[in-house]
Amino acid sequence: MNPDITRERENATFNVEKLTHILDGGIEKTKRRREIESLVISDPDFQSEDLNFLSRSERYDAAVKKSAQMILKLREYGISDPEEIYCYKSCVHRGRAEPLDLHLAMFLPTLLNQASPEQMETFFIPAWNLDIIGTYAQTEMGHGTHLRGLETTATYDPATQEFVLNSPTITSIKWWPGGLGKTSNHAIVLAQLHTQGKCHGTVHTAVRASKKECVVVGDIGPKFGFDEVDNGYLKLENVRIPREHMLMKYAKVEADGTYVKPPSAKLTYGTMVFIRSMIVGEAGHALAKSCTIAIRYSSVRHQSEIRPGEPEPQIMDYQTQQYKLFPLLATAYAYKFVGQYMNQVYHRITGDISQGDFSELPELHALSAGLKAFTTWTASEGIEVCRMACGGHGYSRCSALPDIYVNFVATCTYEGENTVMMLQTARFLIKSYQQASAGHQLSGIVSYLNESERRLQPQSVSSRPTVVNVNDLASLVEAYKLRAAKLVEVAAKSIQQELQKRVSQEDAWNNSAIDLVRASNAHCHYVVVKLFAAKLGEIGDTGVHSVLSTLALLYALQGIQQNSGDFLQTGLLSVPQLSQVSQRLKELLAQLRPNAVALVDAFDYCDEMLNSVLGRYDGNVYEHMFEWARRSPLNKTEVHESYHKYLKPLQAKL
Amino acid sequence: MNPDITRERENATFNVEKLTHILDGGIEKTKRRREIESLVISDPDFQSEDLNFLSRSERYDAAVKKSAQMILKLREYGISDPEEIYCYKSCVHRGRAEPLDLHLAMFLPTLLNQASPEQMETFFIPAWNLDIIGTYAQTEMGHGTHLRGLETTATYDPATQEFVLNSPTITSIKWWPGGLGKTSNHAIVLAQLHTQGKCHGTVHTAVRASKKECVVVGDIGPKFGFDEVDNGYLKLENVRIPREHMLMKYAKVEADGTYVKPPSAKLTYGTMVFIRSMIVGEAGHALAKSCTIAIRYSSVRHQSEIRPGEPEPQIMDYQTQQYKLFPLLATAYAYKFVGQYMNQVYHRITGDISQGDFSELPELHALSAGLKAFTTWTASEGIEVCRMACGGHGYSRCSALPDIYVNFVATCTYEGENTVMMLQTARFLIKSYQQASAGHQLSGIVSYLNESERRLQPQSVSSRPTVVNVNDLASLVEAYKLRAAKLVEVAAKSIQQELQKRVSQEDAWNNSAIDLVRASNAHCHYVVVKLFAAKLGEIGDTGVHSVLSTLALLYALQGIQQNSGDFLQTGLLSVPQLSQVSQRLKELLAQLRPNAVALVDAFDYCDEMLNSVLGRYDGNVYEHMFEWARRSPLNKTEVHESYHKYLKPLQAKL
Repeated sequence: MNPDITRERENATFNVEKLTHILDGGIEKTKRRREIESLVISDPDFQSEDLNFLSRSERYDAAVKKSAQMILKLREYGISDPEEIYCYKSCVHRGRAEPLDLHLAMFLPTLLNQASPEQMETFFIPAWNLDIIGTYAQTEMGHGTHLRGLETTATYDPATQEFVLNSPTITSIKWWPGGLGKTSNHAIVLAQLHTQGKCHGTVHTAVRASKKECVVVGDIGPKFGFDEVDNGYLKLENVRIPREHMLMKYAKVEADGTYVKPPSAKLTYGTMVFIRSMIVGEAGHALAKSCTIAIRYSSVRHQSEIRPGEPEPQIMDYQTQQYKLFPLLATAYAYKFVGQYMNQVYHRITGDISQGDFSELPELHALSAGLKAFTTWTASEGIEVCRMACGGHGYSRCSALPDIYVNFVATCTYEGENTVMMLQTARFLIKSYQQASAGHQLSGIVSYLNESERRLQPQSVSSRPTVVNVNDLASLVEAYKLRAAKLVEVAAKSIQQELQKRVSQEDAWNNSAIDLVRASNAHCHYVVVKLFAAKLGEIGDTGVHSVLSTLALLYALQGIQQNSGDFLQTGLLSVPQLSQVSQRLKELLAQLRPNAVALVDAFDYCDEMLNSVLGRYDGNVYEHMFEWARRSPLNKTEVHESYHKYLKPLQAKL
Repeated sequence: MNPDITRERENATFNVEKLTHILDGGIEKTKRRREIESLVISDPDFQSEDLNFLSRSERYDAAVKKSAQMILKLREYGISDPEEIYCYKSCVHRGRAEPLDLHLAMFLPTLLNQASPEQMETFFIPAWNLDIIGTYAQTEMGHGTHLRGLETTATYDPATQEFVLNSPTITSIKWWPGGLGKTSNHAIVLAQLHTQGKCHGTVHTAVRASKKECVVVGDIGPKFGFDEVDNGYLKLENVRIPREHMLMKYAKVEADGTYVKPPSAKLTYGTMVFIRSMIVGEAGHALAKSCTIAIRYSSVRHQSEIRPGEPEPQIMDYQTQQYKLFPLLATAYAYKFVGQYMNQVYHRITGDISQGDFSELPELHALSAGLKAFTTWTASEGIEVCRMACGGHGYSRCSALPDIYVNFVATCTYEGENTVMMLQTARFLIKSYQQASAGHQLSGIVSYLNESERRLQPQSVSSRPTVVNVNDLASLVEAYKLRAAKLVEVAAKSIQQELQKRVSQEDAWNNSAIDLVRASNAHCHYVVVKLFAAKLGEIGDTGVHSVLSTLALLYALQGIQQNSGDFLQTGLLSVPQLSQVSQRLKELLAQLRPNAVALVDAFDYCDEMLNSVLGRYDGNVYEHMFEWARRSPLNKTEVHESYHKYLKPLQAKL
């Protein structure tokens, strides 16, 4: 054990294990998670060469091998709870995406949601046994989340009772679905349904992706990360499938071609909301891993000097290093707690939905969209800050940070592009604002908009006495709330002003989009601060409560400093208070310093899961970096063949 | 040609070619650059398979091949001007780092600067002919830029007139130098000189990196980018080199071991300043490439809807997309102009230095450090914004954006870690501030600090009438200047306050580091805005002047919006003015919209240099993406071997 990191742990003021239980959701959950992790870690079938040293094809191969083992073992151990499956899977693949992801997370669930009982027989059982390996093909080369834009056609032919599937243009080629390139033999294809001379919008059809003339399928080539996944393309040319291959639990096409509409569009809402909520937790997870690596490394890395003549200090003693890492550590905690909250709300609302009560769904939908964008953007930036805070070694693949980044940053784009997500949340906010302005009493998370008309008159802003106490978290939550209210109002007014210029509603919206994103952002920021503060109320242990309170305050104050213009502009803070915020932030950094390593230890990532030389629990970074480097494929031979091929002949010519 | 992109070009209001000449520094330079580019592009020896489809060892191999060809052809064509060599090299390697970089950019120049005439004979001529291939080994596993921290020792043994080189600890192993792993057979090694029982600080020694027992050398393994380079490690164990292998143009060790100091430490300053200045231009370059890709793609990509029922709009019509890309486009122009300026200043000051006048060097040193950090941070973030603005396809390696990012972002760390750089600039600013406070009249770029004491009394700030005109660039330059002055003052006062707590000077510095970085940042921002505005004065053509003025205004106003807290806090802007800024920004985005494609065309990156399917000049993105994907190595076989190895057996077991 590195003595620096040992000393850090001795200086901690709280019980790390207790905080781990809080993060896991209880002592029993911690125990079970550790059991599952050790099942994987101790399993010789999951030992493999470092992926960093393999070619993409080898990485794909290694991933398929692990995925196949994983399916067998999950059944062998009888692990069937979705959360436990997820935990096992994350551990097997170290958090990376894998070739069967779409089969497990989209193909099977879509069958469960959309297949009729007969179709369940035809597809689900074989899919469960991996005879059918499926993917979910929505995105096309020229079209993303906008369903109406999809160009793939499914034209019903009553003569043969078949659908004829086509990719009529180059932009209509299905593009990106994971597992489509090589792994799958089937796909659920979203296509525009044409029957009886009319287009009825998108439907789900199940297609066998065999490589006949009529189906062109393959891998879309290397990407930024995701080397283990065969994201693929699919070009359909007059592919005929039986009528029964359209998933018909809700929408139907009868034998004669008559189209029967689904009863409610909201039924397909749920999965999307669930996945976005999951991503919020993943943002906390990715940032927590990155902070673990950067903070442990900062405690064993010595560099330059603060006081001349003294030994090189731990880099964590530099105020600038603390300012980079500790707010991110606070953010990781915040997002983990928000992830827990979203998970709880989702399960509660799912209960309501199954009883036919959709009332809370729009709010959850709006919240999950905005929070997905808010958390993935900041977490992605944060991962890179952590990586760069490790100096040169952060660029080495052995740090694991490049991998965490490339595998996480895609969440900014998939499952709803972030700007689109922010604008969806803004639509809900503006609608709520307009309802409040019209005198309706709002409930739920947007209830603060009830007060906005009354309290936030422009003329009153500057004269209203500033009441924010920068040392009181509850007061800061209030400030974030008022900032959100003000920015929603600014966006709404921008739309009104545009409308006064006689532009259409749609153009007014687009011409106010910057303000709308800003409002959503402020709304999400408020929600995060509020939920972090609320979490503190659940924590009994004094030591843990104290350190988490410091983190929460740091999170709130740093957000104010970074967005100080908003808080000044709305009159929520005065200029002298902002100087107080700066001063207080510095104090909080110093206050957190002794607990920094313990706070990342509490995330409880074992070395096998982190897979980072810089983030090792024992802090013995350099010996292991040297050992890792010696295994680099370029070191297999003393002289690389390129020397004989190119450099030696060059020397002869010069 | 894609009709969308053709229409964009038709709508441009200025002469693209004229702007290209300005960016190149004159019509002749444009001509010569294009000549050099076409030499490479038309050369069959430089055609190669897409690097994205190769393994790392194959990529290294391909790069060595190209580098060897490059050396031959440069001599064949008689290209010897450093700028032209750089242009040719960038074109051969498409802007990527390559295995001979350190040989050409560090080994040869260090010999030129540090070798005695005899050593030039011994080393330079063979190195020129590539019999010696060298690298520059400073960084150690545990030590970066802080020279005093280096642990490698060179102990002089007068008995044999040799130096004995050692890596006494694991942390002293040389780590990271490019080309050290495989390509080089020699290295200039920085080591602590011990002679006559004393340590005399670091010296340069030339070492043959043969793989005897006493030298352990190899590749440090895969990194985030830089697949073509064999960054290496070097562990020295009692390696004996003749006394004459210490580079002795300045510092010397005589036969008996007497150490002779170099005449001036400033002589080694120059290269560092030059490289940092170059990096500023590279920041403009990387961002310009990224903007070219993202803006061209945004003009041919259609998605979702603004107005219901109408065809999907070009994504560049979304205000949010404009807000992402156009300020970055303005930034790319700004950094290109700052790069030109730094280059000019460097050459002017180099002239002075050769005449013994070092007076301007500290200012240039401080400026190049801060600007290197300021521009590389924002450009790195900007590249990722461009990439994500391309949606899913930005993640494909065929977009080239992942490559641009991983190859550029390292500039934040190498040649001086950015935070360290910012603090170096801050040291100059604080020193200047203290001189001004003591009544000295400052000249040069920091002369604004002369006024700070007088004009920026805290009590006067809020009462001083706000004079900034948000539509006038000169007025905005003034506002940036006053912001910098204020933030330098805030940092200086923080140090004073810390000193009053009776902490040491060094601790006061560290406890104010956040403020110091903030001050440097504001200073650099001011310099960039100022230089952009100054550049406008050189431009005669009305059309070009007009569009560049719009860009400069956009750059300045967006910086104000993003840092609105600073401008409000210092009383430079009022709250109503900030709303004006927001409004004006939206107008500027709309105003730039018709010129966006032409503005990236003016950067004049030919398709071969961009190497991006999304950034193609003809806008025919989708057909070429499909064609590219089909060449993916995973598509070489219809069924991947992993199916037979793992999935088929799994199906049998379930």
